[in-house]
Amino acid sequence: MEAENGVTLEELTKKMAVFGEERGWIDFHTPRNLLLAMVGEMGELSEIFQWKGEVPRGLSGWDEQTKLHLGEELSDVLLYLVQLSDACGIDLGKAALRKIQLNAIKYPVHLNADNKQSSPSDTAPQPDTEEESGMGKNI
Amino acid sequence: MEAENGVTLEELTKKMAVFGEERGWIDFHTPRNLLLAMVGEMGELSEIFQWKGEVPRGLSGWDEQTKLHLGEELSDVLLYLVQLSDACGIDLGKAALRKIQLNAIKYPVHLNADNKQSSPSDTAPQPDTEEESGMGKNI
Amino acid sequence: MEAENGVTLEELTKKMAVFGEERGWIDFHTPRNLLLAMVGEMGELSEIFQWKGEVPRGLSGWDEQTKLHLGEELSDVLLYLVQLSDACGIDLGKAALRKIQLNAIKYPVHLNADNKQSSPSDTAPQPDTEEESGMGKNI
Amino acid sequence: MEAENGVTLEELTKKMAVFGEERGWIDFHTPRNLLLAMVGEMGELSEIFQWKGEVPRGLSGWDEQTKLHLGEELSDVLLYLVQLSDACGIDLGKAALRKIQLNAIKYPVHLNADNKQSSPSDTAPQPDTEEESGMGKNI
Repeated sequence: MEAENGVTLEELTKKMAVFGEERGWIDFHTPRNLLLAMVGEMGELSEIFQWKGEVPRGLSGWDEQTKLHLGEELSDVLLYLVQLSDACGIDLGKAALRKIQLNAIKYPVHLNADNKQSSPSDTAPQPDTEEESGMGKNI
Repeated sequence: MEAENGVTLEELTKKMAVFGEERGWIDFHTPRNLLLAMVGEMGELSEIFQWKGEVPRGLSGWDEQTKLHLGEELSDVLLYLVQLSDACGIDLGKAALRKIQLNAIKYPVHLNADNKQSSPSDTAPQPDTEEESGMGKNI
Repeated sequence: MEAENGVTLEELTKKMAVFGEERGWIDFHTPRNLLLAMVGEMGELSEIFQWKGEVPRGLSGWDEQTKLHLGEELSDVLLYLVQLSDACGIDLGKAALRKIQLNAIKYPVHLNADNKQSSPSDTAPQPDTEEESGMGKNI
Repeated sequence: MEAENGVTLEELTKKMAVFGEERGWIDFHTPRNLLLAMVGEMGELSEIFQWKGEVPRGLSGWDEQTKLHLGEELSDVLLYLVQLSDACGIDLGKAALRKIQLNAIKYPVHLNADNKQSSPSDTAPQPDTEEESGMGKNI
């Protein structure tokens, strides 16, 4: 079941389903329970970043122990997300590939001089024009 | 790159990296920007569930359009999570498999008469005993 | 400074400003740091409710200790919200009164037979019609 | 009912209770519904900050329209927080004053040369020492 080239969402979904069954947790794993549990983990993830001010890509200067802890919190969010999708009968892998295609249509690549667009927003709704220009100034 | 058995986190990571590069968004994709974008998507996901009261596993009674919308919001959270992990230099797939192993140690399977434990908490810290008993009553 | 009739947002704002100044924390209290801290507290609040399934208004059956803990987490969200508003130069009390007026315009009272509307949404955008009807069924 | 010196939490609580009653929304205002609605508003608040990188106290450079929008999102979080507390039978004003006292005990003022402590954490659990030192470096 394990993919040669990486970890599949299907594999994680199956592992978590077995994990919950073995412990008799299935009755607790309703969609809204799992959603609130994911919000809880998102909070723990945010706490890692809360007093740090801006942080560079790659996390230069972070010690290994904090990075390990960060990986655990990112995983906690993922594992609840996988379980929530499963509880809702949603195939998360398929849904994600479809969403990427929708995003590609919503945000077409406009080639220009420096190949740079004024706004990032792969998956999120675009802020209004004023915010966009503010965005450019702030970064 | 695509796994035969499903969608890998590595594949999604690569797709989103290319997606951002093609649009010149890499400067916006700092860890804290991506984290706040993910919190935004978590909010949109919560809005789907906010006035529904308890919702059963499988979402019986939900129409297809709402389920499709739900799949998109779940995907938005996933795609930002994948990009955040990438921006932090964390291999999310490996981290998730490691976290499942840690959880298995933290919450060993205790076989008993009905193979049911009093508390679910795969990835989250356990609530105290009083809350656990309250938990049982509420579900 | 303390209002006779209750606790004012201005009072809390001032208390928290003094609290931070006395501890030399002002440099850490940037808007995005405070926002992420609030997301962290929102997560802790969610953890109280995460395994409970639906919970009735008034929390009948909850023990006093859990309620006390709940009051602390609600307060943590409030105190960061007050500090975030202050860091942004926003008068939260005035803004809240103004928002209530905007909501009253957005959601006018339609009197009907049972004085019951099909949709709650004081401050949030309304879900679409299909969700509304689903809402009614689920609660 | 309105305090001379500012806006009280009691006033907002009462206004929102009347607002919900007039519209027949009370059945929808269960604790977990209100909590998820608040998470939704927290997401909308985060979206304002998501692509901006670090933002200075006072929001210099932000236009008035964005600040007005920010005030509305901050208010949305507050108004759901007030309604959630009310639905739980918690006196939010009293709880907040009590929490400030608890925080003062937890984080006593240590006077030193520059009256500056190494860690901010009014209401949140302290990060570990490594994170604290990282914190100082990052800000």
